[in-house]
Amino acid sequence: MASSAPSSLAPAEVPMELHARNREKLVRALRNHLAASSLPIRGFVLLQGGEEQTRYCTDHVELFRQESFFAYLFGVREPGFYGAIDIASGKALLFAPRLPADYAVWLGDIKPLSYFKERYLVDLVFYVDEMVQVLRDHHGELGKPLLFLLHGLNTDSNKHSKPAAFEEMEKFDTDVSTLHPILTECRVFKSEMELALIQYANDVSSEAHIEVLRKAREGMKEYQLESIFLHHIYMYGGCRHCSYTCICATGENSSVLHYGHAAAPNDRTLKDGDMALLDMGAEYHFYGSDITCSFPVNGKFTKEQIVVYSAVLNAHNAVIMSMRPGVNWIDMHKLAEKTILESLAREGLVLGDIEDMMVVRLGAVFMPHGLGHFLGIDTHDPGGYAKGMERPREPGLRALRTIRTLQEGMVITVEPGCYFIDALLAPAMEDPVSSEFFNCKELGRYGNFGGVRIESDVYVTAEGCKNLTNVPREVWEIEAVMAGAPWPINRSSIKSDTENGPS
Amino acid sequence: MASSAPSSLAPAEVPMELHARNREKLVRALRNHLAASSLPIRGFVLLQGGEEQTRYCTDHVELFRQESFFAYLFGVREPGFYGAIDIASGKALLFAPRLPADYAVWLGDIKPLSYFKERYLVDLVFYVDEMVQVLRDHHGELGKPLLFLLHGLNTDSNKHSKPAAFEEMEKFDTDVSTLHPILTECRVFKSEMELALIQYANDVSSEAHIEVLRKAREGMKEYQLESIFLHHIYMYGGCRHCSYTCICATGENSSVLHYGHAAAPNDRTLKDGDMALLDMGAEYHFYGSDITCSFPVNGKFTKEQIVVYSAVLNAHNAVIMSMRPGVNWIDMHKLAEKTILESLAREGLVLGDIEDMMVVRLGAVFMPHGLGHFLGIDTHDPGGYAKGMERPREPGLRALRTIRTLQEGMVITVEPGCYFIDALLAPAMEDPVSSEFFNCKELGRYGNFGGVRIESDVYVTAEGCKNLTNVPREVWEIEAVMAGAPWPINRSSIKSDTENGPS
Repeated sequence: MASSAPSSLAPAEVPMELHARNREKLVRALRNHLAASSLPIRGFVLLQGGEEQTRYCTDHVELFRQESFFAYLFGVREPGFYGAIDIASGKALLFAPRLPADYAVWLGDIKPLSYFKERYLVDLVFYVDEMVQVLRDHHGELGKPLLFLLHGLNTDSNKHSKPAAFEEMEKFDTDVSTLHPILTECRVFKSEMELALIQYANDVSSEAHIEVLRKAREGMKEYQLESIFLHHIYMYGGCRHCSYTCICATGENSSVLHYGHAAAPNDRTLKDGDMALLDMGAEYHFYGSDITCSFPVNGKFTKEQIVVYSAVLNAHNAVIMSMRPGVNWIDMHKLAEKTILESLAREGLVLGDIEDMMVVRLGAVFMPHGLGHFLGIDTHDPGGYAKGMERPREPGLRALRTIRTLQEGMVITVEPGCYFIDALLAPAMEDPVSSEFFNCKELGRYGNFGGVRIESDVYVTAEGCKNLTNVPREVWEIEAVMAGAPWPINRSSIKSDTENGPS
Repeated sequence: MASSAPSSLAPAEVPMELHARNREKLVRALRNHLAASSLPIRGFVLLQGGEEQTRYCTDHVELFRQESFFAYLFGVREPGFYGAIDIASGKALLFAPRLPADYAVWLGDIKPLSYFKERYLVDLVFYVDEMVQVLRDHHGELGKPLLFLLHGLNTDSNKHSKPAAFEEMEKFDTDVSTLHPILTECRVFKSEMELALIQYANDVSSEAHIEVLRKAREGMKEYQLESIFLHHIYMYGGCRHCSYTCICATGENSSVLHYGHAAAPNDRTLKDGDMALLDMGAEYHFYGSDITCSFPVNGKFTKEQIVVYSAVLNAHNAVIMSMRPGVNWIDMHKLAEKTILESLAREGLVLGDIEDMMVVRLGAVFMPHGLGHFLGIDTHDPGGYAKGMERPREPGLRALRTIRTLQEGMVITVEPGCYFIDALLAPAMEDPVSSEFFNCKELGRYGNFGGVRIESDVYVTAEGCKNLTNVPREVWEIEAVMAGAPWPINRSSIKSDTENGPS
């Protein structure tokens, strides 16, 4: 991105084949499962798409966003649909809501069924009110047709997905246990087309983060940084949705991991000397990004800011250097913790043997969240705990959204952080076991520091991994871009005698 | 706003007394009602605030926006609260959710109850889990305390508000019929402090509309206009929410009244010769705005565009000139229809006697929606149909969101429109009664026109009314601002010989 042009982005084409491939992948997995269980290869996968929601008792319509499993298989942006896949033939059927005549006046053209068939590359389209008859007709055998419905636990929310519901369900046999784990596992491994969308969402968000870096100034409100980001991703990237509510935390707020919600709405004024921690990601055609940049509001790191920032960057880089198929995510989390503790020890914030600190889980005092999570159609993409995997109980580790061993095709965030959180530090400093490790005098200088998080989205390849996020990370890069340098930085344009030049 | 500075806005102070006054007004009205019914002045109003919602089965949290009745009485931005008002004493009590200890790590400081008492100017604050005991203790009499709960119909959505629910409700007597109509009626009449917020939301939105006017260009996407608006209201106005999803319709889309939703997502490319119809409004501390500007994308009206635009502007101005206490809204709707038909007749699009057209409701073919609606904490603010009022059945009139007689203190939108909607024009042209009025040849020239809507937010005063919206409305004003003139236009800077100068 040249610093003179507002953007080099152009909204990416959305290939609907992506969803056809997702369906093929599911059908293959289901057939394998049924064959392995000596069950007949028959029945329909049936999913219910999302419905538009209104606010409380009013007619205020919330902007609709499709349910994620439905989006994965069908890519449908409209509400009120059902979708089915015939497991034997692989054929896909969509069922569209029959719209009232005055829809044409208020909401737009009533599209013919052929429009949806063409747009979403499915084999057949009917109305929802024809669904029962169509599925029975397609069954063609004696007895009730078998429907595989989606019901299972989301291990991040602890909520269950709601199986498709409709009238006359008693005319079908239903299986609510087979589909969820198999479909979830499909979503864990990204296809090339999925990866391209996640890369695009990353490109958009990376550029928008850089735009914010350039414009951040003392005296602004945190929400103005949010506004700059939102504008950039929509104006130039065509991204109407974010993956999640923007976290624009400055000063002490940067130690609040999920700052930015309605009760803490990014409304502080930026001050000279603050660190900013901005966790913001665009979504494009359902696929998301999740990026955190941390930087000094005034454009120049202080010594203390370099200490904390470098500790986190070392952890971020050490993890990405180590990621490859076969590596377990708990080990990556511990590697990040250890790298941070080593950095803090070097600077005298903690004292003693690093291994001893690891044994008492001291790292969780500074990084209480997990190192990262799967990313896809959901920001916390499902599948982090496959069947039988148990959540760890130790501090820090129990916050992990996945404990899996890395495999090619996974997209996972790498987001180490180091925070000075009173609610954790105070009791840890009083605890007889952990208190001996703290250099309270030195730590006292970080009382109002807040925290630093550095988060990139990383794709696991056959040989290692690829970082999809492209933002300034080194201290000198951040300072240069905040001072007006283009990104990527043209190294020849950096004065060789600057103290912040590349080393 | 000078054209050189990005904005002259500064986010308005939010006086929490506003909500204390709202409560006082409700208590007075309830006491009057009870006294008039010879009932004892006792009991509590009890409302349940909104809860945070997650998306489907995931942990994706939607940005919380308080339920509107609760916002009206308490102004609380946080989820999970209950609020009560002791009708006898007028005292207000808030009940805050008891947050888990790890809230401090993830979501921010756990505020003491005194914080809410101070911020929201209530008399007492307790935890939700103390509510039953507190209300019983405050009752102080024998028998069960009486709770007035909110239950009633929203006449725009046809949905009922949900009365507060909690455990051990059987320890109370409840009344679910008294509160809703009285509280709704309170909301119909805006206080000065409420009006100031609606004015501020209008100021912000007006300025943002002008920013969009200046930047709209052939080749842009509709959503880029939305993005410019959203950025302006947030960046400079501090408005994180809109009153409703932005409608950014150009070309033929401008005849789709509620364009812009997920299935019609503002994704058309602007073309030379298009009209744009932009219906967008910012919300500030719950209070909203609702403004529509229509203009030619290329900055110069064609003859046809002037015909339609002027018809609608004449209607808009005629209504505002006529609005005052005692005037009925159905008459205003008819005035708008008649003014539009007269304009179309002058230009030869319709033929015959205007009164005859009014009898067959021809106006509804060109303006199928109602002339306007109450505006406040909801975009379609409640109370449009007071008890006993019946919705008209005639085309056009049946779409009215209110049929009330204007009274001082009401804020209502004035939003006449003229659209060329195939789904309405085609059958009307074939109908033996209405067909005689159409000049099909002349109308044929408007086949792909779309439509025009002009919408302002208007406050009814003792003597007349006040337009809270401040945007260019005259053809020459729009053309001048799109060509770079400041707003308000400095008349001396307009060349006197320009054909579009002030007349």
